[in-house]
Amino acid sequence: MKPNHRRAIYPGSFDPVTYGHIDLMKRALGMFDEVVVAVAVHTEKKPLFTLKERIRLIRESVQGLKGVLVESFDGLVVDYAMEKRASAMIRGIRMLSDFEYEFQMALTNRKLAGNIETIFLMPHESYSYLSSRLIKEVASLNGDVSAFVPRTVLEALKKKFNQ
Amino acid sequence: MKPNHRRAIYPGSFDPVTYGHIDLMKRALGMFDEVVVAVAVHTEKKPLFTLKERIRLIRESVQGLKGVLVESFDGLVVDYAMEKRASAMIRGIRMLSDFEYEFQMALTNRKLAGNIETIFLMPHESYSYLSSRLIKEVASLNGDVSAFVPRTVLEALKKKFNQ
Amino acid sequence: MKPNHRRAIYPGSFDPVTYGHIDLMKRALGMFDEVVVAVAVHTEKKPLFTLKERIRLIRESVQGLKGVLVESFDGLVVDYAMEKRASAMIRGIRMLSDFEYEFQMALTNRKLAGNIETIFLMPHESYSYLSSRLIKEVASLNGDVSAFVPRTVLEALKKKFNQ
Amino acid sequence: MKPNHRRAIYPGSFDPVTYGHIDLMKRALGMFDEVVVAVAVHTEKKPLFTLKERIRLIRESVQGLKGVLVESFDGLVVDYAMEKRASAMIRGIRMLSDFEYEFQMALTNRKLAGNIETIFLMPHESYSYLSSRLIKEVASLNGDVSAFVPRTVLEALKKKFNQ
Amino acid sequence: MKPNHRRAIYPGSFDPVTYGHIDLMKRALGMFDEVVVAVAVHTEKKPLFTLKERIRLIRESVQGLKGVLVESFDGLVVDYAMEKRASAMIRGIRMLSDFEYEFQMALTNRKLAGNIETIFLMPHESYSYLSSRLIKEVASLNGDVSAFVPRTVLEALKKKFNQ
Amino acid sequence: MKPNHRRAIYPGSFDPVTYGHIDLMKRALGMFDEVVVAVAVHTEKKPLFTLKERIRLIRESVQGLKGVLVESFDGLVVDYAMEKRASAMIRGIRMLSDFEYEFQMALTNRKLAGNIETIFLMPHESYSYLSSRLIKEVASLNGDVSAFVPRTVLEALKKKFNQ
Repeated sequence: MKPNHRRAIYPGSFDPVTYGHIDLMKRALGMFDEVVVAVAVHTEKKPLFTLKERIRLIRESVQGLKGVLVESFDGLVVDYAMEKRASAMIRGIRMLSDFEYEFQMALTNRKLAGNIETIFLMPHESYSYLSSRLIKEVASLNGDVSAFVPRTVLEALKKKFNQ
Repeated sequence: MKPNHRRAIYPGSFDPVTYGHIDLMKRALGMFDEVVVAVAVHTEKKPLFTLKERIRLIRESVQGLKGVLVESFDGLVVDYAMEKRASAMIRGIRMLSDFEYEFQMALTNRKLAGNIETIFLMPHESYSYLSSRLIKEVASLNGDVSAFVPRTVLEALKKKFNQ
Repeated sequence: MKPNHRRAIYPGSFDPVTYGHIDLMKRALGMFDEVVVAVAVHTEKKPLFTLKERIRLIRESVQGLKGVLVESFDGLVVDYAMEKRASAMIRGIRMLSDFEYEFQMALTNRKLAGNIETIFLMPHESYSYLSSRLIKEVASLNGDVSAFVPRTVLEALKKKFNQ
Repeated sequence: MKPNHRRAIYPGSFDPVTYGHIDLMKRALGMFDEVVVAVAVHTEKKPLFTLKERIRLIRESVQGLKGVLVESFDGLVVDYAMEKRASAMIRGIRMLSDFEYEFQMALTNRKLAGNIETIFLMPHESYSYLSSRLIKEVASLNGDVSAFVPRTVLEALKKKFNQ
Repeated sequence: MKPNHRRAIYPGSFDPVTYGHIDLMKRALGMFDEVVVAVAVHTEKKPLFTLKERIRLIRESVQGLKGVLVESFDGLVVDYAMEKRASAMIRGIRMLSDFEYEFQMALTNRKLAGNIETIFLMPHESYSYLSSRLIKEVASLNGDVSAFVPRTVLEALKKKFNQ
Repeated sequence: MKPNHRRAIYPGSFDPVTYGHIDLMKRALGMFDEVVVAVAVHTEKKPLFTLKERIRLIRESVQGLKGVLVESFDGLVVDYAMEKRASAMIRGIRMLSDFEYEFQMALTNRKLAGNIETIFLMPHESYSYLSSRLIKEVASLNGDVSAFVPRTVLEALKKKFNQ
């Protein structure tokens, strides 16, 4: 990296990526030279999309966004961040986020790697209530989610639910 | 429907129905000519009671409540609401509800069907901390839940847990 | 009132009325035949606009909204509601409302007048963070609030702050 | 004090005392030999009742409650607690308390006097939404607050508001 | 028990015990003669450690803490508390606890056994964001959790995750 | 400014500056080349310290922190940020912040100036419950606040309260 090159990671499961996630990536690019979207190999629940699919869907959705890199990571997110020499970690914060979990994680990560700052950004108000979970729920019931996800994700969701 | 006939739906899993639910139905009847209790066929977790049992328990609990109808629904709740020509959807709101989930759902539903309003009502303070989950937990451990559910539900719980 | 005529009151200080308030009035009209906007004579803090001004600004902003009535009230809001023979009281609920105050008031009002139900409605997501307080703050500092209030309010704010 | 004598203080402004406060005193008596109700001389806002009145109203309301002492205090509450050799400080916690303020204060007090524990107790559900502020508001508007405060407080409120 | 002997129970799954739990036990000992750590036989999710292991880890961690007893319990926690003739139940409350669940449980328990008070205590600020869940997550990913758990737990975690 | 020079503003009333504020400045310096501490001329309540005093106390407290600038501002904060060609605004977020106010302000500011991002950072856990208000309260009552504020502030507080 060039000196003064600023890199942040944006970790998550992205199952699947939504307009809310993409909005955050753009905001992060306003502050960092590079944003590494870090897709978790291991997720708490079995994801709907495989790791490969999740990565492909993000890549297709961020075409043209200069400075965004998509990778997968395994193990502790702070270990990955240090390996990437990132100085910050991005988290979206919605008006009614699960603050407890967010703050627990941020403080635990700080204890594990004090030099990596967690930065909370707010998505655009139109995406303030978006969640991958709700989108999957609605899509599985045949609801129209085209206002919430890019076209490539829309098609992937339709295929998954055999519509 | 007669012109000016007002119908609301009250969706949920009702696993099982509690005095808190019934309290809300009565409140909703003060504003609507008809309240359709809409029992979800698919629930996030495997329910304790079958769909048939859950419907039967509600029906037996609301005998005499004029204007209450009990049905099951599958698919998107807003599609069901439109099919029933309901103008509103009732949600109970407790002092420490999972506001995030409630508001996400309400805003998503509004996006999917703008003409169906979500209405939040507060149950009576005595039922403000009631939850079907806690009732099942207590009943499964042989605790006395007669203050929280109608007699028919009490008996069904006892039978389930072989008491 | 005709039998079956449904009337709700929507109490507040409306100092000044915003697009968020008007959005709620429209939603309430979907459920009630008549919505009485009840402007409080006494407000906790000294209002920016006089009672007369606040009423005029609402009236000019809701022209054409059939079924909306604007009045002032003094004393207990439930006494006023009973006098108007309203069956419900409307409250806007935002994602991060002062829930404690809202619920305290709703439960206290229920104790004082059990037959008047408090109904919580969500404003449109674009208005979910609007507050009269913030609007006054921004306007007083010469900021542009035309996205948040009707033109008549905009002009009144400009005049107040001598712009 | 006898060895093993356990004393707690219950600080507040008690402007005026409510059934919620008294409920907490009784609960605290189940754990402590003595509960000192500590009425703050200085309150953030100008109180409705004078210090003398507030103390008298509590004393008249807790007649017969063995183990309750009513005093006033000035200065830091932890200094007062140490002077009284109390080991704990009681705070009521309602479902929608101002948690931030409560926890800030508890942690600051712990920093100032590590040996005095702050204990949070829940009032009875019927009093879970009671607040002195709301009671004064309702009483000032001629509303009936007899369900919320002892008779002696009721009369004092009536006198204050010239009813 | 001697007359005036005060006993509290501190129920939980302790999967595994953390410095946050131990901090609470010490605080509780300041108010009670005896604190019974009550390890739940049945936990909502399958625990990482067996009941026997969880009990052993607590016992090894509280050696030297006079007045702490470690036991397991099955069935309703209030039935267990009454059997032990405890007068209070301890719960840790963190700044962003799941208040809803905590308060629901406390109020339900009060309904089931009115004479057992639930007491909320705050852990030391350094442990205010600790959770057994996060510790297991970090340990499973090879992260260093030695700041959060006693040495015996550290070793047990390492063995579990074959490090 | 040199190209690629990154500047953030950190607005507030700083009445007075605390270790929590200084902790945040340091964190912000990890991401920005320059952090302008922007002291509000107008504050909601009458401040304890004059504008001049507040600026002096910050300047003396951040001696040696390279990249920190202390200024005052009047009018809309976003106008000031644009004038300073800052790309971001820093806000501290504590576990129990007044989220509503924070998010309302962030969203309103975004509407007024879309190119200035609000960034939420968490202070160190030791400062997570610090507030200027509580510090003034404690200091006014003769309590020891040396753990919360720099020496220069400590002395200024003592002088104010004539100790």
